Parts: sequence; C-alpha cells; structure tokens
Amino acid sequence: MSTPSYSVIGTRPIRHDGADKVTGRAIYGADFQMAGMLHGFILRSPHAHARIKRIDTSKAEVFPGVNAVVTTKDFPAVDDSKIVDLGEGNTPLRWARSNVLADGKVLYRGHAVAAVAAVNAHVAEEAAGLIEVEYEVLPCVLTAPEAMKPDAPILHQDLKMKELGETTGKVSNVAEHFRHVMGDIEAGFAAADVVVEREFNTATVHQGYIEPHNATALWNNDGRISIWCSTQGSFVVRDATAAILDIPVSQVKVTPMEIGGGFGGKIPVYMEPVAALLSKKTGRPVKILMPRQAVFEATGPTPGSYMKVKVGAKKDGTITAAQAYLAFEAGAYPGAMVGPAGMTVFAAYDLANVTIDGYDVVVNKPSTAAYRAPGAPNAAFAAESVIDELALKLGMDPLDLRLKNAAKEGTRRADGPKFRRIGCVEVLEAMKNSEHYKSPLEGSNRGRGVAIGFWFNVGLPSSCTLNVTADGTVNLIEGSTDIGGTRTSIAMQAAEVLGLKSEDIHPTVVDTDSIGFTGVTGGSRTTFATGWAAYEAAQDVVRQMKERAAKIWDVPSETVEQAGGVYRSNGHSIGFKELAARIGETGGPIVGRGAVNPRGVGGSFAGAIVDVAVDPETGKTTILRFTSIQDAGKAIHPAYVEGQMQGGSVQGIGWALNEEYFMSGDGRMMNSSFLDYRMPTALDLPMIETIIVEVPNPGHPFGVRGVGEANIVPPQAAVANAIAHAIGTRLTRLPMNPPAVMEAIWQKSTSPRS
Amino acid sequence: MSTPSYSVIGTRPIRHDGADKVTGRAIYGADFQMAGMLHGFILRSPHAHARIKRIDTSKAEVFPGVNAVVTTKDFPAVDDSKIVDLGEGNTPLRWARSNVLADGKVLYRGHAVAAVAAVNAHVAEEAAGLIEVEYEVLPCVLTAPEAMKPDAPILHQDLKMKELGETTGKVSNVAEHFRHVMGDIEAGFAAADVVVEREFNTATVHQGYIEPHNATALWNNDGRISIWCSTQGSFVVRDATAAILDIPVSQVKVTPMEIGGGFGGKIPVYMEPVAALLSKKTGRPVKILMPRQAVFEATGPTPGSYMKVKVGAKKDGTITAAQAYLAFEAGAYPGAMVGPAGMTVFAAYDLANVTIDGYDVVVNKPSTAAYRAPGAPNAAFAAESVIDELALKLGMDPLDLRLKNAAKEGTRRADGPKFRRIGCVEVLEAMKNSEHYKSPLEGSNRGRGVAIGFWFNVGLPSSCTLNVTADGTVNLIEGSTDIGGTRTSIAMQAAEVLGLKSEDIHPTVVDTDSIGFTGVTGGSRTTFATGWAAYEAAQDVVRQMKERAAKIWDVPSETVEQAGGVYRSNGHSIGFKELAARIGETGGPIVGRGAVNPRGVGGSFAGAIVDVAVDPETGKTTILRFTSIQDAGKAIHPAYVEGQMQGGSVQGIGWALNEEYFMSGDGRMMNSSFLDYRMPTALDLPMIETIIVEVPNPGHPFGVRGVGEANIVPPQAAVANAIAHAIGTRLTRLPMNPPAVMEAIWQKSTSPRS
Repeated sequence: MSTPSYSVIGTRPIRHDGADKVTGRAIYGADFQMAGMLHGFILRSPHAHARIKRIDTSKAEVFPGVNAVVTTKDFPAVDDSKIVDLGEGNTPLRWARSNVLADGKVLYRGHAVAAVAAVNAHVAEEAAGLIEVEYEVLPCVLTAPEAMKPDAPILHQDLKMKELGETTGKVSNVAEHFRHVMGDIEAGFAAADVVVEREFNTATVHQGYIEPHNATALWNNDGRISIWCSTQGSFVVRDATAAILDIPVSQVKVTPMEIGGGFGGKIPVYMEPVAALLSKKTGRPVKILMPRQAVFEATGPTPGSYMKVKVGAKKDGTITAAQAYLAFEAGAYPGAMVGPAGMTVFAAYDLANVTIDGYDVVVNKPSTAAYRAPGAPNAAFAAESVIDELALKLGMDPLDLRLKNAAKEGTRRADGPKFRRIGCVEVLEAMKNSEHYKSPLEGSNRGRGVAIGFWFNVGLPSSCTLNVTADGTVNLIEGSTDIGGTRTSIAMQAAEVLGLKSEDIHPTVVDTDSIGFTGVTGGSRTTFATGWAAYEAAQDVVRQMKERAAKIWDVPSETVEQAGGVYRSNGHSIGFKELAARIGETGGPIVGRGAVNPRGVGGSFAGAIVDVAVDPETGKTTILRFTSIQDAGKAIHPAYVEGQMQGGSVQGIGWALNEEYFMSGDGRMMNSSFLDYRMPTALDLPMIETIIVEVPNPGHPFGVRGVGEANIVPPQAAVANAIAHAIGTRLTRLPMNPPAVMEAIWQKSTSPRS
Repeated sequence: MSTPSYSVIGTRPIRHDGADKVTGRAIYGADFQMAGMLHGFILRSPHAHARIKRIDTSKAEVFPGVNAVVTTKDFPAVDDSKIVDLGEGNTPLRWARSNVLADGKVLYRGHAVAAVAAVNAHVAEEAAGLIEVEYEVLPCVLTAPEAMKPDAPILHQDLKMKELGETTGKVSNVAEHFRHVMGDIEAGFAAADVVVEREFNTATVHQGYIEPHNATALWNNDGRISIWCSTQGSFVVRDATAAILDIPVSQVKVTPMEIGGGFGGKIPVYMEPVAALLSKKTGRPVKILMPRQAVFEATGPTPGSYMKVKVGAKKDGTITAAQAYLAFEAGAYPGAMVGPAGMTVFAAYDLANVTIDGYDVVVNKPSTAAYRAPGAPNAAFAAESVIDELALKLGMDPLDLRLKNAAKEGTRRADGPKFRRIGCVEVLEAMKNSEHYKSPLEGSNRGRGVAIGFWFNVGLPSSCTLNVTADGTVNLIEGSTDIGGTRTSIAMQAAEVLGLKSEDIHPTVVDTDSIGFTGVTGGSRTTFATGWAAYEAAQDVVRQMKERAAKIWDVPSETVEQAGGVYRSNGHSIGFKELAARIGETGGPIVGRGAVNPRGVGGSFAGAIVDVAVDPETGKTTILRFTSIQDAGKAIHPAYVEGQMQGGSVQGIGWALNEEYFMSGDGRMMNSSFLDYRMPTALDLPMIETIIVEVPNPGHPFGVRGVGEANIVPPQAAVANAIAHAIGTRLTRLPMNPPAVMEAIWQKSTSPRS
C-alpha cells in the first residue's frame, strides 16, 4: 500500500493544553472549590479480613463541625442479582457497591467502612476516628497460590466458581478458571527437541500516578447529582455512580477535571458515590481527597501473579508447543486481569499447539484495576523469559527465534481471534536493525536482553462535535479525559480532514451532559476512537462547507471538491477561512458531529532492548541503555507516541527492578508511601530511546492503532533476560531488586546447576 | 389551516432551571469565584461633557494592595475606520471602544475613565479615588431638540450627519436623518375630514434589571481570554471583546452565567474588555461588579424622545394620511432606537399615504441600549394617542377605528416590507371580545384606554446539539442565555419532535467554545430561532434512530416511521427509550445537530386594555385592571408567554406612570438608585390579565413568532388614553406622574379648550 501524504498528521505541533499545564492554570480535582462546600474523610479498615459486627457513628455525628456520617446502610437497597458494567466489564452491583463502602465484611486493609462530612478535612478525619467499629478479625490470604488451597479462608461465601464457562456450585476463592486450547499440546511437546519450563511470580504493583483520587459531589434539590473528579472516564463515573445509587444515568453529570496520571487506575469509582451520599444528607457539596496511603491500600493496583510457562521447539527454532498456567490475584473482588494475560501471553507467535489455563483468584488485597495493558506484562515476563532461555539452549539469536515464529496477518490466537494486518514482524525487524542491537555490549557483569509484547487495544464508543468559528478556526468538543495528550492527537485528525493547522482547532473536554457518550480513556483507544469521531465530525463539516460554497457559486454541491482546506468547483475556489467568515450569510452556523463505535481495532506490538550492568557486590542493576520499539499503526503526533513508549518502558523497568507491595503476614502494606514504594526517577535511568514502527491499521481512517499500552509489556522480561545474561542465572520473581539479585547470585554459586 | 395536535407544545411543564433558581444554587456572574482572583473598580466621570486633559495614575499604582491600573492607553491601537457589529448593528470600533474607556473626552456622567485591579473591591475603589483626572468641563446637551439646535455643543467632531442615506460633510449631533415615504402625504391630509396632530415627549427610562452588570476575565498565558459574565449574548461578548482588544474571536471564550434580567440592556459590553486588560497586566483573573449607580449612569437605557404625529381620516374612519417626526436621543454615541420606531410607528395600519422622518441624535447621556422592542413604545405612545383622539373626534369605538384600518397579510409598511400572515386583526378582535372590554367601567375619575403595538422580531443564527442518553433521555446543548425560560421552550420543541416529555430533555446553556454560533437572546428570537435549531437537531436524531431501528430489524431505513417516539416498520415497533438503550450495539452514540439562520421571522402584535382611576387631588393614577393581548404565533409554553406579557405590561406601566431619568441641568441623574427611580412593584398593580392569540407564523415549524417584546409597546398609550378619558384632557409627555397629571388638570381648568 502506498503511504498517504499528510499535512498535519505525523507532525509535532505544540500541545493545546501546554500553557495551562506549565503555568499552573490547569484545574485538577483537588483544586475544585465551591461555595458552602464540606470536606469528607473516609474511615478505612485496619484489618485485611474481618467481619464488621457493629458500627457506632453516634460520637462522630455530634462532634462539633460534623454535618453527616454515612455507612453502607445509606445506600439504597440493592438487587443482589443485578449485573453492571462499570467500565471494566460486567460485575455484580453488590460487589461494586461494597467495595465503595464495606457491607458486612472488610476484605482488605484500607477497605472503606464509613465516611464523615465536616467543615474541613481535619475535623472530618478527627470525627472519623470517633466512629466505633467492632471487628471480628478473620485469617487472611494474600497470594493466589495460598488462596487456592482447599483450606484457605474464603473471602466471599456467595462466590461460586466458574469452571470453563459454567458456573459450578463450588464456593471458592477462585472466581473463574478458563482454558484456551489450540491443537494438541501433548503432541506438540512430543515433537519438540528442546523444552523449557519455568515458574514465575510477580508482585502487586501500583500505577503510582502523582495525583491522588478526588471527588466532589453535589446532590441537588432537583434530584440531579453533579460530580467533579479526576477520572479516565467521565461516563464511567456517571454510569457507576448512577448504578450504585440506583438512579437513572441522566440524573448524574460528571465534569472531568484535569488528571494527574491514571494508567488504568482512575477508571473505577471509589469516593464519588460516597461524596454524593454525604451531599444528599447535608444538602451541600462535599469534596473528598484520598490520602496517598489510601491510594496504595484501597485503590486498584495491578495483580500479583503466579505463572508456569512451558515451551517446546525443534532444533531449527520452530515452536511446537506452548503452555501457560496463569493464577492471578483479583484482589478482594473477582475480576483479575488474567483474561487479558490469557489473550496476550503467546500472541506474538504463530503457534499450532497451545494450552492456556487462567485462574481469577480473590485475595485480601485491594481490588485490582487496570494498569497499562493489564495482565500482559505479567504474562510476557513469563513467556518471554522462557523464549529467551529457549534461544539460549538452541543457540539462536533471540530475535531470530522470535522472527521465525512471529505472528502475522492470518495468525490465529489461542483465545480465538485471527489477526488482521499487524506489525509483529516489522517490530522484530526494527529491533534487529536498530543501532542499539547492532552495537557491541562490552564489560563484565553486563547483559543485554530483548523481549516483545502485545496489546490488543479496544474500541468503544466516542463522540465529537465541531463548531466552525467565523475567524476560520474550529472548536472541538469531546468527552475523552486527556491523560496523554489526546486533545492534540484528536484535534490533529480533524485538522487533517479540514485542511487546517492543529493550532486552528481548539479542543475542549466537556462534561457528560455536553457531549455524546464517550467510553473511557483506556485500552489505548482514545486517539483511535475519539480521533475517528473527530474525523467523522470533520467530514460532516466538509460536507456542509461544500454546500455553502455551492450556494455562493450557485453550483450543485456534488461538484464541489475540497483539498487542503480549499473548496473548488467549476473554476471557483475559496479557502476554509474565507468560507467560514461567510457561513452566517449562507445559512447559519456549521456544526459537525461524529459518533462512532469502531470495530476496526488494531492491536499493537512492542519490543524492548535493554543493556544492564549488575553490581555483583550489592545486586543493584543499572539500566545502561534502553530502546523501546512499537508499532503505532500511524503516529499522529510522534512526540506523544515517544512519550507513551518512554513512560511505559520506565514503568516496566520499575516493575522489573523495584516496585512491589511489600506485605506483612496480616495483610498490611509496609511501604505505602512514595518514600518507601520506590519508583524509578529520571536520575535512575538513561534517556529511553524510541523507534516508532508504522504498519497502518486497516481498520482506522488514518491507520491508528493506539500506543498507550503495548510498550509496558516487554520491559520486565527484557530486563530479566539482560540480568540473566549479566549474572548467568535467571530470576523468575519480580521485582528483581538488589536482595533478589544477590540471592540469585548466591544460589548460583552454591548450586551445581544454574 | 387545520391546527396541528401537539403532545408537549402548548403544555406547561415545570421549568428545568426551577430547582436551582428557587434554592439559590443558580450561579450568577457576581457569584463567580476563582483562585487568585483580583477585584476591579472603574473610575467614572463626574461630568456630563468634558475634555480629559491629563490622567495621573501614579498614586493609585503604588497604593498598597493595587495590582494594576488601566486607561484607554492600554487598548491596542485602533483603526479609526473599522466598523464592527457588536450585537446591535454596525458601529465604528473607535466609538464602541471609547464607551468602554473614555478616549480624550467624557460624554456623559458615569463615563468610564480608568480602572484599578486590587486585592479586593474596597482597595480598588479607594485607589481609583487617587487617580487624578484633569477635566476641561464643556457645556452639555441632554435632549434631542436641544442637541439639534444650530448652536448646540457638539459631542463628536468626527460625526458627519447622514442625510437620507448619504453621508454629508456636516458636523452635527444628528447622526442620521432618514425618511420613509409611501403615497402622497399632502393629498392624504387633503382628503381627510378630521386631522389630529400632537407633539409628544418621553423620558429616558432604564430596564431596571435586578442584577447589576458583572464581568470576570482571565487573559491566559496562551493568549486566550476566558470571560464569565451575565449577558444576553455570550457570542456578542466574545465578538465585541475580541474586536475591542483586536484579537481573533476564537481567542475568547465566554461562559454565560445565570442572568438576573436584561430586557435588552445586557447586550453591550461594558466591563469585559476592561477586566481582560487588567487580567493581562496582572496575570490573574479580575472580577468587576458594577454598582447600581453606575448601572443607571453608564449602561444603556432606552432613549428619551421628542415626536410629532399627525393623522387624518375620513368620517367613516378610513385613515387617509399619517405623518410622524421622530427625534430620538442616542445617548453619547450614535445608534438611537429611532430606526425601529420608524419601522413600527404605523405598522398596525394599512395605509396609503405615510411620511416618517427619523432623527438619531447624540446627547450627553449614557449610550442607549435595547430595551424590549426598543423605540416602539415611544412611537406607539405618540401614534396610539393620536388614533385615540381621532376615534373620539369621529365618535367611533377606538377598536373599531383600528379594525377598520388594521394591517393584514399583504399590507405594506412605510419602511418597505410587506406583511406575511400576521395577527393584527385577531388581536384587535380578541380585545373587542374580551370580558374586560365588554365590562362596564363605572365611577368618577375613571377611564379606560386601549392601544395596539407591533414588534417585528428578529432571526439570527442559532445552534443546538442533542446527545441521546442510554436511559432514553436527551441532553440538549445550546448557546442562548436563558432570561425568560427558554431552556424549557427550546427543550419542548425537541421533545415534541422526539415524542418525549419535556422532563426527558436536559437543557444546558454552555460556553462559546462548546456550541455553534448563537446570536443574542433578544429580539424575541430565542424560542423562535434556537427552538428551530432544536427542532432540526431532533430531526437529525430521528433520522439516526430510524437507521438504528432499521439495522435491528434488517429493513431499509426509509421504511421506518416515527410517531410519538415509537419507531415502526413492517410490523416491528420500538419505543425511543428502548431504542436508546441499544444505540451502543447498533453503531455508537447518537448526536443530533441543528444550526439555523432563519428567514421566516414573524412579527407579533399586542394590545392593551387598561382601566385607571385618577385621584383628582393628588394626581395619582391607580391601575384598576389591565389586560394584555398578544399574538404568540404558537405559545410553546403558555405560562412563559403569559409571564412575558405580564412583564412587558408592567414595565410599560412603569414608563407610563413613574419612570424617568430625572436630570439636573448639568447632566446629573438625580434619582440613580432603586429608592428614587420608582419602578412598579407587585403592590402597585392588579394581576395583569392575559389573552394569548395564536395566528401561527408560517415561517416556523411550530408557528412560533416570539413574545418577548410586542407586549411593552401598547401599555404607555393605553394608560395615556385611559387617563385622558378619566380627566378629560390629554397628557403627551411621559411619565404621567402625579405632578404631571395635576398640572394637566390645572391647565384644563384654566384653559378654555381642553
């Protein structure tokens, strides 16, 4: 296919929200103020697992400055069988609700139990301390393997295990066991010359966004609720709050504030329904800010996991069989990210014989949430470590082994779908041809690792409207919270169609009343889907502009052509700006609308190449060089794509080397602050190099795939592979922090086989 | 024509903004707060006419707490020849700008001279007092006849009189003299059996909205200005501010706050550009609230006027000639409301011989602004007084005289246009058939008066978008500031098309970035034009809903019919709400857009019947009974229509009996407070009765004409006629307050002819 030539797409214009962000004008959720506003504080469980025997709020209620106290009793009665989709798939409403305010039991330390609204946050906190909660403390389980034991304490007596699609009568911490099968796994292993099998563990890891959660709610006298919060999905907050409070969605208006990071963790609602309840009781707006400790203890991290992966190959490198056992922690409520792990674990390979078993296991930790390609980095850590070891055993270049087996158009995944045009081979080739990979790595205790990863990306509905301004610019209205620069990547797509500059489009993210339904900013979908809505809205504008030009020239509108913002027919021509100045006289304002629910989602592959130095005396791993390679489909704004690749890489390095929920035996996170939860900083890392691969997605007008996630999938395995090559032994547990590396080095020196 | 049957239109649903208004949640301009906000104060001229010789701001600038001081020097250089339309027709930019901050001369007491931004309004006011302005005081002129004298002080040395369409070289306070001619006026009067000629004067009158003007502006680092204010036209504020500050309109975003009354007076910009300048200088948001005295002294009232009207008729009542001389005060800058006065003075009559002379005269009073059918009440006071006297002389019932000569479809107005279908006859017949008119009026010192009036109404562009919600309701987005309940009257038109209830539509008035261009809320246009945009947007939704139903049923979408919100084809049927719940699966969100620049404007006629009692000892006039009759075309929400009729009637009564700018000889308004400027209150008046006439406007989908203005046109004349009948002598000067009535009674008793 010939590459289309674009004027705006592929350039790097200044971001529309730049000035506000760098001057402090951008208004985040915590900045929100309102006359008569009260401040809320949420009382949280000190126990990881306990029965609530009694809550006495009487002392808090009469504390001076307190306006209201709420507990789960203040929620409307809930239909136990009601299933709702709160932005991350279907879940029983009762679980969604009891995660917001515990009902009967607390299931993790930090679980919300009650909330207070008061004149200020300090009074609210003080009063919350006066709420007496009588707990019957229960034994807790903190990992999937523990929780799967027959004698493990059971979190939910009403959780019946789903086995291969069928709901069983078995009460279990295993919410679901699924299996994807392709071919004959036994025959595949029988045909193999070399087989590698390893067990892996990964820790619970938090997204670590800088901005804590926040929510302000006003339950108005007319029954309508207004919410201001930082969220990845204003419509998710609207729909979830409406479901939990049992009111129609149109009674809730959510105004998304600027957001200080999300990475998937700002999709679920935590405090919005609580703030709304407090507002209803007090008749005043109520703001709640979450302390950092609660962000760690009570919002959704990514699952810790236990995995076994076994891969067999012939001597020529042809993989004959691949098997995975994936047991993922869901946290307190079902819904672990093991589903996507099962979809992605071997997705980079064209395989005949595959079996994948996945287990969704509840444990006494906070309910997990999405975190950038959720589930996929865990799975890739396991699979790509095994592939690396296989390459070593086969004596093949690890990229050649991958290229030999790489997925391509037509490859079927074990979970069903067949790939359309994808860029797996192109990414691997870009890695192989990279200056980084070709460069020598010299010095002792150094290693180079590579890995590849996949994320399928999602579609979901999006809306966009465009209003043409008399000065020839266009106001763009959209509902996608802008986490990663999507105002600009969406505006650029409209600009391209209209023949305008990016700066001629003024994008605004508006509230849920002011735009058509728009799904969450997540799943790498925003530039893809909301950009597509902008494309459609721009086409709608072009159609109308043609009619206006036709009216001016008195020609049929079908004869009017537009290119580069110039409208032409029959010797006439007029530019967008000139025509825009005349729309009043030719029939009134021009509004373009676009609304899509796209089916043409295109998955993205990413690769990582990393060089490390391991200090044999401290176990400390230093990242010497890191290159991220990703298929963007089409990079609308390459600087943003590079930013996503760098961000995902750095987070992946954090998982690899440092980050973990360090838990006490009774379920307490011992490092719930940014001082103790060690994320990489700019000082810890070299500049992350990037190589954008562009294999256009045939399912999008500009070929966009979405670039927010695939880049976090390979780094963990790449770093593990690099460390293995540096120290000559393999670590199979994340994080690979200095003690773990030292331990591996000691194990190697005391063990006859590495 | 058969009357269509409607489900929503013509009903009286609860207003969407009701709860917020009655509970104090509605946010008005003065309520707006922002972090780091400064407060501004505007220094105003103590003289009605003076040259500014020097402004020294140095003391104010160093006053503790002051952040910035601005004068006209802070505006960008202006092109003297630039003409802009700031919502009330074309005007030279230099005049628009110097009304905002005086340049060289002050032209009325209260003229803004400089402004201060400080930590609070008190510091700002204190500092403003330290600004030294050296004035050379000039003689002032306060009425049109005075200002037209050859030796009158000249306000603008650069104002060249326009005579019958041609710009002359003559420097004059008369900005323009126009003449409308039809037939032969001399022949007409020669054919008359009876001729009445009278002179009339009306006072300057203020709209008297409860909420003073306000503006907050933030000139952001990215060059974009955000403005929050109470205005009748957010796009007018945007365009005017951009023009005055010489930046593109797309660099200004205006968020309209709730508005506490406007009546035409909240169309011009006064403080928005000043707040923006102060924000630019300080880098912070600046809020300015206008004190009540400044509202009276420096915002646009309706013009005072001097008029001569002469009408001749045959004995059978046929009017043979009508002549008017209209000299209207423009205030300090050209643009008096004499144009509309000329369009409406004889519009109720089907005449052959007419001459109308209009004079737009600048005087040393604030620049006039629109006030409900601007110009028309003055003209109707004159014309309808003369018609009343003519009826008396002819011995005809005053309504019969009017009916005999009433304008109808095809009647040509002296200013050119020919009427389409209008309701003049129907209004007169409704008056004649009214219980009020048929009822006897007994008692001494009592009189009954009638009058009729016309307002042409306006079109202008409007936009509306509709977003369908999954629960089967619809969010409506519009840009028309809601002064009189237009959220609901617009929403009802969408509901009618969609087959939903009014309550199923959630209307929101959004900022200028978030909706297509929408003209001012004025000219009785909003329910007409923005309602039409909502109608179009709803049709757009219906089209898309049909496509979705067709997709579900696998039938061609042309076969799908919709009625009452139920979609049907081929035996299938589905309701709006059920279909709305399925739009995600059938292609994504549904957004409907409507944008219009309507040509089918339909003028409205209104009549008034009033019974008065005049106390012969005090001259006090008591309104005993008042009925307002108006052709609404189609009353979308009859309660709102009645409210408009009652409001216009009460304001007209205020003009008639009490309201005036009571000026000292040196141009000072002596009654610039609500204590001294006496407007009628509920205690002064009986319940205003209303009769809605419905002669559908063929130029609107639902027949809407617009009802905000015509109702203020007849009351002044009706009250004058009633007083004339009560006391046996005619007052020709407004207001007809007790001293004026006593004077007339005395004059009558001392004069041989009444």
